[in-house]
Amino acid sequence: MSELTEMKCIACQAGAPLATAAETEKWKPKIPDWEFKEVEGIQRLERMFDFNNFKETLAFVNKVGAIAEDEGHHPVMLVEFRNVTVSWWTHKIKGLHANDFIMAAKTDQL
Amino acid sequence: MSELTEMKCIACQAGAPLATAAETEKWKPKIPDWEFKEVEGIQRLERMFDFNNFKETLAFVNKVGAIAEDEGHHPVMLVEFRNVTVSWWTHKIKGLHANDFIMAAKTDQL
Repeated sequence: MSELTEMKCIACQAGAPLATAAETEKWKPKIPDWEFKEVEGIQRLERMFDFNNFKETLAFVNKVGAIAEDEGHHPVMLVEFRNVTVSWWTHKIKGLHANDFIMAAKTDQL
Repeated sequence: MSELTEMKCIACQAGAPLATAAETEKWKPKIPDWEFKEVEGIQRLERMFDFNNFKETLAFVNKVGAIAEDEGHHPVMLVEFRNVTVSWWTHKIKGLHANDFIMAAKTDQL
């Protein structure tokens, strides 16, 4: 079984399958700091990252931006003075795709 | 009367005065695209900026970050794929200070 951090996002179309319960159970322990949160009926992975100052905060936003561009999958980020809340989900399928678990794990690596 | 964009933020302590009704009436027409929004009882200025792609989105976030660092006053930014929602308010006084109008006007200039 591949580690999430070694996997690549695959192009995802509307109609692609949501992560199954079995996949979710398998991947959940690999991203223990992420909260499974439902917003307007759509599941997302959410984690807040804390920093010492705004410069560090902005540097992190750019690092997340860089992996998002690399993988062609983009999060929503709530950027505050000393923290960033990152949310991953797949808009096209209104929920969590394997890609979101991959990106959460890659975000943890930054 | 100075233009907002030519004004500098002043250091703001808890207990500093909120923008008065007269100031708000004076400055509001200078930032017509900003919404006055109350969140948890606290007034903020909010505007969404749209972009063509994530690269442009991230470039804008960095420009806002740069003026925030210059002025020592920081917004909250909700960063999505092709848009950024910028919110200005003053945490220490739980509302809108002259600084917030200045920063909204400077954000419009970017």
